[in-house]
Amino acid sequence: MYLLHGKLTAKDGQVGRLADVLLDASKFVSTAMGCRLYVIGKDENDLNSVYVTEIWDTKEDHDNALNVESVKELIASAIPLLGAQPIKGQEIEILGGSGITI
Amino acid sequence: MYLLHGKLTAKDGQVGRLADVLLDASKFVSTAMGCRLYVIGKDENDLNSVYVTEIWDTKEDHDNALNVESVKELIASAIPLLGAQPIKGQEIEILGGSGITI
Repeated sequence: MYLLHGKLTAKDGQVGRLADVLLDASKFVSTAMGCRLYVIGKDENDLNSVYVTEIWDTKEDHDNALNVESVKELIASAIPLLGAQPIKGQEIEILGGSGITI
Repeated sequence: MYLLHGKLTAKDGQVGRLADVLLDASKFVSTAMGCRLYVIGKDENDLNSVYVTEIWDTKEDHDNALNVESVKELIASAIPLLGAQPIKGQEIEILGGSGITI
């Protein structure tokens, strides 16, 4: 199982809109095959960024979801709001735990 | 809702045991009030560390769980395996998403 923890940094004044786009995206992404968790959050030490933490059955499921048309459209709508190039998120292989069915 | 993403770095050769202790801990922690997610993982770029990603209803629920006797015992059993002082994890306030009931 695959965890991806990444962030997107907004242009000044656009972080609220960026969060809204990602919250909309979560509705589509969560229906994609293999998506277990897709949550959007804020870090008070980095107020211009939005964090996305995702859990997927496999990395391939995650990568495939990026090709779903509705997801591609939402990604395109987020790009004008970004103040920095997206940084590759941290990829983690989940060994186990609770809260999701491993 | 509160997300905590942290890591624990093991002494050389102890990362497997450290992961096992945390996997055991997840069985107790997951029964604590407010615990929604507690997963243990590895990052291939940091093979001596174990990552813990947690979601709780509130930060207070997380903090209270650290005082549960069985959790305290498991923390105590992990300390001799650590090769570095634990670093405070990244704290995120979840705005929304899917996979957990917000």
